[in-house]
Amino acid sequence: MMMLAADHIDGLGAILGPQGLLSQPADMASYESGARYDGGRAAFVARPASTEAVSQVVAYCVSHSIALVPQSGNTGLVGGSTPDDSGMQGVLSLDRLRSTFELDIDNRSLCVDAGFRLSEINARLEPYGLFFPIDLGADPMAGGMVATNTGGTRFLRFGDVRRNTLGLKLVLGDKSGTVLDCGAGLRKDNSGPDWKQLFIGTGGAFGIVTECTFNLERLPKQTATAYLVPRGGEDALLLLSEMEERAGTYLNAFEGMSGQAIRHALAHAPALRNPFPGGDIPAYVILVELSRSWAPRAGEQSLDAVLEEILADIWELPGGPLLDAFIGAPSEMWALRHALSEGAKSAGNVVGLDLSFRRGEVMRFRERMAVLLAAEFPQVEISDFGHIGDGGVHFNLVVPRSPDGSVDVELAARLRTYVTRIAVEEHDGSYSAEHGLGRRNQHFYDHYTPAKLKQMAAQFRQVTSPGAVGAVHL
Amino acid sequence: MMMLAADHIDGLGAILGPQGLLSQPADMASYESGARYDGGRAAFVARPASTEAVSQVVAYCVSHSIALVPQSGNTGLVGGSTPDDSGMQGVLSLDRLRSTFELDIDNRSLCVDAGFRLSEINARLEPYGLFFPIDLGADPMAGGMVATNTGGTRFLRFGDVRRNTLGLKLVLGDKSGTVLDCGAGLRKDNSGPDWKQLFIGTGGAFGIVTECTFNLERLPKQTATAYLVPRGGEDALLLLSEMEERAGTYLNAFEGMSGQAIRHALAHAPALRNPFPGGDIPAYVILVELSRSWAPRAGEQSLDAVLEEILADIWELPGGPLLDAFIGAPSEMWALRHALSEGAKSAGNVVGLDLSFRRGEVMRFRERMAVLLAAEFPQVEISDFGHIGDGGVHFNLVVPRSPDGSVDVELAARLRTYVTRIAVEEHDGSYSAEHGLGRRNQHFYDHYTPAKLKQMAAQFRQVTSPGAVGAVHL
Repeated sequence: MMMLAADHIDGLGAILGPQGLLSQPADMASYESGARYDGGRAAFVARPASTEAVSQVVAYCVSHSIALVPQSGNTGLVGGSTPDDSGMQGVLSLDRLRSTFELDIDNRSLCVDAGFRLSEINARLEPYGLFFPIDLGADPMAGGMVATNTGGTRFLRFGDVRRNTLGLKLVLGDKSGTVLDCGAGLRKDNSGPDWKQLFIGTGGAFGIVTECTFNLERLPKQTATAYLVPRGGEDALLLLSEMEERAGTYLNAFEGMSGQAIRHALAHAPALRNPFPGGDIPAYVILVELSRSWAPRAGEQSLDAVLEEILADIWELPGGPLLDAFIGAPSEMWALRHALSEGAKSAGNVVGLDLSFRRGEVMRFRERMAVLLAAEFPQVEISDFGHIGDGGVHFNLVVPRSPDGSVDVELAARLRTYVTRIAVEEHDGSYSAEHGLGRRNQHFYDHYTPAKLKQMAAQFRQVTSPGAVGAVHL
Repeated sequence: MMMLAADHIDGLGAILGPQGLLSQPADMASYESGARYDGGRAAFVARPASTEAVSQVVAYCVSHSIALVPQSGNTGLVGGSTPDDSGMQGVLSLDRLRSTFELDIDNRSLCVDAGFRLSEINARLEPYGLFFPIDLGADPMAGGMVATNTGGTRFLRFGDVRRNTLGLKLVLGDKSGTVLDCGAGLRKDNSGPDWKQLFIGTGGAFGIVTECTFNLERLPKQTATAYLVPRGGEDALLLLSEMEERAGTYLNAFEGMSGQAIRHALAHAPALRNPFPGGDIPAYVILVELSRSWAPRAGEQSLDAVLEEILADIWELPGGPLLDAFIGAPSEMWALRHALSEGAKSAGNVVGLDLSFRRGEVMRFRERMAVLLAAEFPQVEISDFGHIGDGGVHFNLVVPRSPDGSVDVELAARLRTYVTRIAVEEHDGSYSAEHGLGRRNQHFYDHYTPAKLKQMAAQFRQVTSPGAVGAVHL
């Protein structure tokens, strides 16, 4: 077992002070494992409380060839924020970067340190009627949301973190820990290459995000939701197009839930009511949400009434693409949607794939996979759900647990490779829709990225982060 | 006078055929001058008709150290698409790149060659109820819109070209004219750095856009417009915030027009009716537009009625920020807005600055500049208008024409430098909001860009475009 020389611990301790550096196993444990995957072992956990301190830590580590893995909320799913098993990588936690929180109401923007959690940000913004429009099951910190370019369930309306990022402050992984300011919160600025874009979604490989300027949106004040049951896969796409045509920018979300995923969720969370008449769960269900940012006005149709009218119109479409529809309370309808992920896990070992396609391709892919997997891996159950409105699908495969509870690692790897190959090579899809890059998908990056793009990354790293920063190697 | 060796003309002619290469002065003239600035002199104009031919031309030119300036619609304002005066640069026109036009209705996206004009794209999309949501006075081609990251009057609702670009095909400026595919039209893809972002808004300096995949939006089917007269500059910001609060995503545009700009437009275009009672033009007027993408539904308030109600509510706000308001026909209201630019030019020599600020800063900047310019440059008149909703302002300065019609080039340069310095250094603004980078603002790039960012650009150019491609040097 290798260990980092004790004088490095002393050197970093001198920079960070006693509160800022952890090196005892018990203190480091929570920084070593991620939310949904096995972690590794850290040489130390550095917890700088300012951009300047981040810069000093990076400068020290790059100068001494110590590898660093930046970590903020550590809620990621792809191994992007935890150290490997070597015990030689330091974790650079951003969880004490919590000073700057500057709301610019006129600009509808927020400049915030990387260590604030999404829930905190939105709780603080609520009194102003504003929010950061990324909607997730998890509760990440600002820095990690940028590093993974998080999407979420309202992507269709508000876009991803990239679209909502107006500026970044970064510490580059070079020997001086260069601090870089990219963007001053302007909504339009073409005075040079938009460099901040390369730091979004790249897991810290080019530099560490310490401060973000985000676009804010007005909080919804009226919401209406419904479950739609399409006749088949192509009908789901038609319903998407019809909803966009008729609901326009009211449309917040168009989320698909497979019947299997719903069954698992209901079995796992008995408090959830089965919303389907007679308990018969359809093969596929779509959750649509409409919202308005203004309070109801006198003389204005309620949003529920608007939704009802739209569904009545769609009901009459030739071919009957809509088999059934239910308008219901948003909180109840979303509760089922948010229980899908845990539901699958309760049913077995989950091999989760975060895929995306052109929108027309997503239903074709899942229907084809159902046939292929039944033939090739009959023991595996598909329990997928996803963001049909933007072509994303969480393609979860449930493998029955062995009696001794062990996980068949080899089968999981085969499944990942098999499904990813078909998604990427035969359906022009992406193996990383919205969970970002990490150790988990490093080999897919290595395999599928054209040589020229790898060369561009290597060249760009030379001038930004020649040091070993980040869990992923671009 | 230098000239390019005749055997290079022969070499390029062999690649391009007789239709594809222009070298006679009369044929080249229209490619040598831009829309609103003096042009230069071209060594030749290459007009390849396919990405492969672009690649061959670039490979030939880079290998023989011939500089190339890519040009598409040539409607830009900053000298980004025309050659310099040396007569040694070739123009690489994309105007024959007009084959691919692939509409993906399910994905709401369009894959289109760089040589299609915005007006053509939208005319072809209209039967499908879709459009590319960039709204401009000019009629650029797809490639140039990407190279400048064009904004326009509906930015507030639909964003810039960057936000609406899902993929690019590029030819890099290296010795092999490497063809690069960035993005396959996916709406979410985090399988690596989003390289296409660096080719957006950089005027071809890193590579030449030959094909674009754009996001499309549904065409508006209901529109309502009004002129608002704010009491003062801060009130304009308050009106913006109130409109966003009450109109939400209906709000398409929030455009500011100075009284001076309106006066010039009315004087220049007598067919325009003075819309203000008694003919008294207010100091500042805001054009707001609301739209919906669906046809009017039975039982639904008309959009005019919604706008009227919103304005009635705003009318009652304490402090009376709204001095006056007029609802009118969209075509008539926009006609005045679109006449402002020509109006200013009819009044004298225009020194045009394309600035942007955080939204709260834009009105403060223009009020401060009114005082400063009156003291420093009393002969100059401000005739500004702009996209207040996204912090952009076309800060046009009108210098009276000298009796002999000559332009005081030295005064124009002093004005540009003076205003830009205050905008950038004292109001955190950008000297290039939405017109892109070109020869016109090269010196501002050189002056204001931090050394580290210049180093990043140089490094990135080494791996993408080591040859001399583009009018701007990053």
